[in-house]
Amino acid sequence: MIKPHGRGFASDNYAGVHPQVLAAITEVNRGHQAAYGVDDATAALKERIRGHFGAQATVYPVFNGTGANVVALQAMTRSWEAVICATSGHVNADEGAAPEKTGRLKLWTIPTATGKLTPELIDTQAFGFGDVHRAQPAVVTIAQSTELGTVYTVDEVKAITTHVHSLGMSVHLDGARICNAAACLGASLREFTTDAGIDVVSFGGTKNGVMLGEAVVVLNPRFAAAVPFIRKTSMQLASKMRFISAQLTALLTDNLWLDNATHANAMAKRLEQAVSRIAGVTIVRAVEANAVFAILPAEVTERLQQRFKFYIWNQATGEVRWMCSWDNTETDVDQFAAAIAQEMSTQSRPLWVSPG
Amino acid sequence: MIKPHGRGFASDNYAGVHPQVLAAITEVNRGHQAAYGVDDATAALKERIRGHFGAQATVYPVFNGTGANVVALQAMTRSWEAVICATSGHVNADEGAAPEKTGRLKLWTIPTATGKLTPELIDTQAFGFGDVHRAQPAVVTIAQSTELGTVYTVDEVKAITTHVHSLGMSVHLDGARICNAAACLGASLREFTTDAGIDVVSFGGTKNGVMLGEAVVVLNPRFAAAVPFIRKTSMQLASKMRFISAQLTALLTDNLWLDNATHANAMAKRLEQAVSRIAGVTIVRAVEANAVFAILPAEVTERLQQRFKFYIWNQATGEVRWMCSWDNTETDVDQFAAAIAQEMSTQSRPLWVSPG
Amino acid sequence: MIKPHGRGFASDNYAGVHPQVLAAITEVNRGHQAAYGVDDATAALKERIRGHFGAQATVYPVFNGTGANVVALQAMTRSWEAVICATSGHVNADEGAAPEKTGRLKLWTIPTATGKLTPELIDTQAFGFGDVHRAQPAVVTIAQSTELGTVYTVDEVKAITTHVHSLGMSVHLDGARICNAAACLGASLREFTTDAGIDVVSFGGTKNGVMLGEAVVVLNPRFAAAVPFIRKTSMQLASKMRFISAQLTALLTDNLWLDNATHANAMAKRLEQAVSRIAGVTIVRAVEANAVFAILPAEVTERLQQRFKFYIWNQATGEVRWMCSWDNTETDVDQFAAAIAQEMSTQSRPLWVSPG
Amino acid sequence: MIKPHGRGFASDNYAGVHPQVLAAITEVNRGHQAAYGVDDATAALKERIRGHFGAQATVYPVFNGTGANVVALQAMTRSWEAVICATSGHVNADEGAAPEKTGRLKLWTIPTATGKLTPELIDTQAFGFGDVHRAQPAVVTIAQSTELGTVYTVDEVKAITTHVHSLGMSVHLDGARICNAAACLGASLREFTTDAGIDVVSFGGTKNGVMLGEAVVVLNPRFAAAVPFIRKTSMQLASKMRFISAQLTALLTDNLWLDNATHANAMAKRLEQAVSRIAGVTIVRAVEANAVFAILPAEVTERLQQRFKFYIWNQATGEVRWMCSWDNTETDVDQFAAAIAQEMSTQSRPLWVSPG
Repeated sequence: MIKPHGRGFASDNYAGVHPQVLAAITEVNRGHQAAYGVDDATAALKERIRGHFGAQATVYPVFNGTGANVVALQAMTRSWEAVICATSGHVNADEGAAPEKTGRLKLWTIPTATGKLTPELIDTQAFGFGDVHRAQPAVVTIAQSTELGTVYTVDEVKAITTHVHSLGMSVHLDGARICNAAACLGASLREFTTDAGIDVVSFGGTKNGVMLGEAVVVLNPRFAAAVPFIRKTSMQLASKMRFISAQLTALLTDNLWLDNATHANAMAKRLEQAVSRIAGVTIVRAVEANAVFAILPAEVTERLQQRFKFYIWNQATGEVRWMCSWDNTETDVDQFAAAIAQEMSTQSRPLWVSPG
Repeated sequence: MIKPHGRGFASDNYAGVHPQVLAAITEVNRGHQAAYGVDDATAALKERIRGHFGAQATVYPVFNGTGANVVALQAMTRSWEAVICATSGHVNADEGAAPEKTGRLKLWTIPTATGKLTPELIDTQAFGFGDVHRAQPAVVTIAQSTELGTVYTVDEVKAITTHVHSLGMSVHLDGARICNAAACLGASLREFTTDAGIDVVSFGGTKNGVMLGEAVVVLNPRFAAAVPFIRKTSMQLASKMRFISAQLTALLTDNLWLDNATHANAMAKRLEQAVSRIAGVTIVRAVEANAVFAILPAEVTERLQQRFKFYIWNQATGEVRWMCSWDNTETDVDQFAAAIAQEMSTQSRPLWVSPG
Repeated sequence: MIKPHGRGFASDNYAGVHPQVLAAITEVNRGHQAAYGVDDATAALKERIRGHFGAQATVYPVFNGTGANVVALQAMTRSWEAVICATSGHVNADEGAAPEKTGRLKLWTIPTATGKLTPELIDTQAFGFGDVHRAQPAVVTIAQSTELGTVYTVDEVKAITTHVHSLGMSVHLDGARICNAAACLGASLREFTTDAGIDVVSFGGTKNGVMLGEAVVVLNPRFAAAVPFIRKTSMQLASKMRFISAQLTALLTDNLWLDNATHANAMAKRLEQAVSRIAGVTIVRAVEANAVFAILPAEVTERLQQRFKFYIWNQATGEVRWMCSWDNTETDVDQFAAAIAQEMSTQSRPLWVSPG
Repeated sequence: MIKPHGRGFASDNYAGVHPQVLAAITEVNRGHQAAYGVDDATAALKERIRGHFGAQATVYPVFNGTGANVVALQAMTRSWEAVICATSGHVNADEGAAPEKTGRLKLWTIPTATGKLTPELIDTQAFGFGDVHRAQPAVVTIAQSTELGTVYTVDEVKAITTHVHSLGMSVHLDGARICNAAACLGASLREFTTDAGIDVVSFGGTKNGVMLGEAVVVLNPRFAAAVPFIRKTSMQLASKMRFISAQLTALLTDNLWLDNATHANAMAKRLEQAVSRIAGVTIVRAVEANAVFAILPAEVTERLQQRFKFYIWNQATGEVRWMCSWDNTETDVDQFAAAIAQEMSTQSRPLWVSPG
């Protein structure tokens, strides 16, 4: 039986709110404050963002990650332009077509092995400039860390931005798990964004201990003027914004953003190591952030899912995803790994029999 | 000088979170819960909504009022259909064109004296059925209470739904301030919605003591299947939904929804009475919910706005809006009324001189 | 019985193709030509348009009037901006919500007595600049001639463009019947467009003897770059464009555009004069272009419609619209007027009895 | 030098209008006819379409192929649904993002070797039913003939429709070159559409001798009601529709549709045979309809393009496309093949030297 409210490995969205974030909400709940971002908490967030991303950075809190991405990408494109992304990108695969249907964006998708784009891969879609028949490539969006748990190095990001800028296009970074990437790289947030030529960032808080809150962070000022209008038109403008801003500020204070992410990443590493010792389970992707992807027998997955919630990533291959959160403990990991080992050991078909 | 964090009369969005709502957030912050609404708190909200709106009611939490309206109206229309609304409706005037640009809706607008539609007014736009050149009227949306502080009686709502249904159309109720309407009418929520023939409600929490949270409440089941998909595509699906659901459940528990609204309405009445005794200030609309609209000399408005935040509703006529919140006290009202009286008494042009 | 293929007064869309236009189609039907506008006929049209509208004018043929309007207005707005128009404007009333649903435009509508906007009327919607809650007014569109058969004088156009430009906005002219306006004014096409400060024109051919073809004519070069892309994305790019361009060039050659329009206008005047002599029929709008609006008894309208096709403009008032085409003859007009007189004389209720 | 107005092999859009089609336009240009499709010529087209596609078929003329596709696909989807197509599909690659930006469609794309989908390929995208995060697959669109010059057999179409229908989805056929497919198959139009389970067809006329005109042909009546409204909203409703309908009727009369297509296909075969004898030129795709795809040295392509217009299909591989039209003659083909042979023989690098 699934332990009620137990901490599993289904998603970093399943975790709750970090106590410091909750305290910040309570703290900011005093009296009246102007709505829609003209409040002290949002002013404090702006200052904090400049501290992390540089003096020219502007920040626009929104409700969720899809909102951040779709607002950002609209601000970076004209009505006939298109966005290049990995086929596995959240923006293509998991946003219910919000980019196309709500943001009126065309996506040019590129299959990848690791979820990461490269200049060479980008060139397979970055063509046809000036041809009205081809939706004009204007932006490349990359996820950092990616949906497959991989992380771009600083140099890899720079290679992309240099190439993309040379084509007259811009680069957006989907940072739903940006803090996990920073923790993996041992880099500051600005090293692989502002300093690496990124134009606009979707900064993610929700998956890293925030209750509800993300932000569009504009690093290239020429995209800033459009964002407030597009945020409103895209239904991503919070009236009582102080309660979102306060959460993000709390996350960005006293290294909470980094501590949470570092811990989640460490739990993924711990899980990877524990699982790699279990015969018959194969880790299939590099564990660089807080996700572990593994292939195990379908019947084992089925039994395990009766005890723990997690997602099957690819029904055809039997690949599953285990995602570690800021609040998963070493005990959580060890118990889960033990359960995997246990279910593997009791499977009906001996491991040493090769599958037909 | 504006008192920092002082409670004014600018908007019910300026107020904070009611302690019981905040407590509910804290309470639900335990362990992991499935994301996107498959959680205990959302299950509790569903039950609570059925209690208030009837057994067939289904509820879909969203982030904000514009989101609730645009999701609801999309679920009620096909791609070529249109929505009839009052010109003063929030959906037309104040949503940054989200209905048109994000929801792909056409609005047929109707000027009104009071913000309220009638069957006769609706008929001025409900025509052209079957004519492809005219965006087909399919839904009428009314606000309850309206943006002008007025409230439809139960009979008025029934007259509209009966008429609109007879034309083969449906009725949406924008309930950003639905609790204030209920308080004004002395009616249960279902008396002027489910029992009065409303098809879909945007249920508002944010303006009534919630931190962040509204909901699409579907009363006519034929519109329910579309909502989950449209909510996602419209970027209104919260991952950690338990924290929105818990707020709305807290609001709908132990009459908190009604107490907050009753109090806000009473403060508006108190303000109306106090102000009506001030020579030169004219209350220009019926005070039925929590808003007071008044006309006063521009120079007085200007001086008052240096002491208290509030909005000018109509620059041309000098009309201003004072909005009372769940947390405004009698002292707040009395001090504000006294300030108005004071500023009126010191104006340069004597009141008894007729304007040129 | 309605005479098969008889020339009536229902719409200038009911008329056929002028022989010179048809000849131009035949003439251009030789061999292969590059598609999508890289052809000799389109080159000739560009030259002809510069002749009529000035050296900086660029032209983009499209399929129909709605297409011209929606392409033009998209090119003139950013994704969060809005268009101000008369409530009676074709763009609002008669385009099946294509502006909103296909062009993603928000319309701010203004009721008018004559179909014509003025600076004062425009000011009732041109406000809220910088306020994200209000879809930002960016363009004013006027129809010339209007949907109500009225025509802006050159000075009236200039007053609008001067005012609108002073607000930082632009002006679009819906010229579905631009030639009729020119004929009415005795002015060249450029006098009330290029020389009067218009930024972009929808140039109409179909209602003036063309088989199928309109064009976006950009007078303010800053809007030109977007049009080719938006035309394609809006599905208004003809592959065999030479056949549209040749028609428009034929229309703009040897004064055919003016002769057709002058004739249609004259027929409207002739009809107005004939009808004004019939007791009980009231001409209710100024007859300035090729439309006549009249009020007559409903039963007479009903009988007349069994003999001639025409449209009821306003069911409530009994107003009907009679539209004259380039091919209506004096005999057509005289026979129609005689029929009106005949039906009026046989109506059941004596004219001198006042209606209850 | 390129022969002015010479017949080349760039595109079947470069060809002109067949004399019988032009005669039909002239013939229908008599007197007034009701606009927007209530005319004799459109009535005749409806009858003709029923003759070809079956008694339940309804037809809705539109302006162009992109228009037909986007209108059809909108009519077949709800606002949150998606369309599966080949990556090489016109709808994805060549329509300037009109499907996404104007039709609000999400495309799930599938790489193919031949431009043709199969049930197995479709399954790579037809999943996630009921999952709000994944834009719901609702329609599969196939092109017949494909953009790569290949043709589905009747059995291949049936295999797709059977599979797709079993998943609760529908099938659209992009018939921009449907007549070429019929000519290739030796089948009637209905054998591989109506009788093979296709739900909606985009019927193409423009590439087969029509001046300007395509049509949405609805075979599954449940999609019919939406089309007239969506056609208008999508700006694809012609006012003087008789002139489009007359062309399509002429095409569908006396086997003109088949004769034109059979001839174009034969010219492609002739070109294929002639070119296959030229050393160094490789035909890289099956020549089943009217297109020939070949790879030849870049410098030869460059020189040839100075004499004849045609398109490079893939810059990286050197693949070019030669498209035959209804009016290309055997002499055209022979002269072009001779030119290719001539340019190949004069290239700087001997053919027998293997490339590095």
